[in-house]
Amino acid sequence: MFYIIGLGLGDPEDITVKGLNIIKQCERVYLESYTSILSCGQEKLEEFYGRKLILADREMVEQRADEILEGATAQSIAFLVVGDPFGATTHTDLMLRAKEKGIATSIVHNASIMNAVGCCGLQLYHFGETVSIPYWDETWKPDSFYDKIVANLKHGLHTLCLLDIKVKEPTLESLMKKKREYMPPRFMSVSEAAGQLLEIVANKSKAAEGDKEPEEQKLDENSLVVGLARVGHDSQKIVACTLREMQQMDLGPPLHSLIIPNSNLHELEKEFLQQFEALDQQLS
Amino acid sequence: MFYIIGLGLGDPEDITVKGLNIIKQCERVYLESYTSILSCGQEKLEEFYGRKLILADREMVEQRADEILEGATAQSIAFLVVGDPFGATTHTDLMLRAKEKGIATSIVHNASIMNAVGCCGLQLYHFGETVSIPYWDETWKPDSFYDKIVANLKHGLHTLCLLDIKVKEPTLESLMKKKREYMPPRFMSVSEAAGQLLEIVANKSKAAEGDKEPEEQKLDENSLVVGLARVGHDSQKIVACTLREMQQMDLGPPLHSLIIPNSNLHELEKEFLQQFEALDQQLS
Repeated sequence: MFYIIGLGLGDPEDITVKGLNIIKQCERVYLESYTSILSCGQEKLEEFYGRKLILADREMVEQRADEILEGATAQSIAFLVVGDPFGATTHTDLMLRAKEKGIATSIVHNASIMNAVGCCGLQLYHFGETVSIPYWDETWKPDSFYDKIVANLKHGLHTLCLLDIKVKEPTLESLMKKKREYMPPRFMSVSEAAGQLLEIVANKSKAAEGDKEPEEQKLDENSLVVGLARVGHDSQKIVACTLREMQQMDLGPPLHSLIIPNSNLHELEKEFLQQFEALDQQLS
Repeated sequence: MFYIIGLGLGDPEDITVKGLNIIKQCERVYLESYTSILSCGQEKLEEFYGRKLILADREMVEQRADEILEGATAQSIAFLVVGDPFGATTHTDLMLRAKEKGIATSIVHNASIMNAVGCCGLQLYHFGETVSIPYWDETWKPDSFYDKIVANLKHGLHTLCLLDIKVKEPTLESLMKKKREYMPPRFMSVSEAAGQLLEIVANKSKAAEGDKEPEEQKLDENSLVVGLARVGHDSQKIVACTLREMQQMDLGPPLHSLIIPNSNLHELEKEFLQQFEALDQQLS
């Protein structure tokens, strides 16, 4: 049996009792290490489970899946994923490969940012399409997520923005060499995300100059946004402020997420968000 | 401290280790019993936790919240919710009331249908707004969810349809009496949901007769839909078929959910869904 087990938001105790029992009786246990991060570190997990974990990076999962699945027709193998098992496409792919090999699979669900984000008081069924905000570089500045945010605003829906994670990315130089060298891990902060959004907003408004049609629902530097850091942890931090203010906001260590709420909040949503207002900021 | 603890999808072992540890040291533990249901029953939970639970129905939560929160400034009180704590508006309200009283609150997240639905292989970030399909009666047949489904289809997004649950609904007759009497609980099946959707589709197409404009993205009886029952449980069942076929489908005991996928599935989504095809049905 091949188990894919969600670890939830990242404290060792966030695993379900079901998941923990399975881990204890498995032959091998892999820990997926590149679509999200453990805030607690591998060692703490190993201590809590009382067993060794095999770190599975992108190269292993995408190119050596056979190695992970080996023996799973007879033995129990577990693959641990931060959040819920179906948060990333890779894990769906791994399940299909297992089925091709005639290996039975089983899923242990857990919380993920996709539902835990409700902790800021914005109702989950008022969210539209989720977007990902990627790190920009000198030459590559994609902004298709902006149109999705605006489409959600037009339909009166909130947008959850998942922020980029770069883990074990090979350096450009090392791609030519035999020995891969890796860049230090990077996790986009709400401040960095706000900065990129402000740049898009500035470009779009320049492009729209002279345009007579008024845009009713759009994002601008005064739009209310909500920054979330380390959701589900004791050090969780939530701040509601304008997009411009968010660029100056330091919410501390990763992971961060950003929400663009619709401009027509329900009473209960407004009331709940008020407790997270940045100083000198009043929700109208 | 007032804890709101998510129980996940409903097996006793779906609780997190963190949640279980908190339950064991609380003075009183309430079990919310009306926004979702426990497939395992209260007794099994009590046995697993080794303690008694106080059942909290809608009347108690909405009208006697003070009783639930009593003593929580000094003692630990837990409130258990199937799924994730922020699935229902009521729980957000309960947190606000606690804060008004100066009671510290803490949330223990868990899986909910909003993220576990990824188990059918449709990617969570391709979902648009979630809709709720309510039970119709003779005189009340709301259909606003239909327009939301069509809006999602137009944007190339899947729709998760949450199906109605009626638990401890007073009978119309008993509303006049001193002693309330309740209707037996009802849980909408994918077959019932498909039936209501087909009725709307028939009405809309009648209304559109003679209309020359072609509707590109719409729902009709041949649309592919995905029915899910008892997600996360050993008896989980997923079926992909047409809306018309879904009306005949019996997926067994509750809870059920229905997904309307967009008509432009990604390769991996298509491949994953194929394993759930009903007989005589081929995804094109």
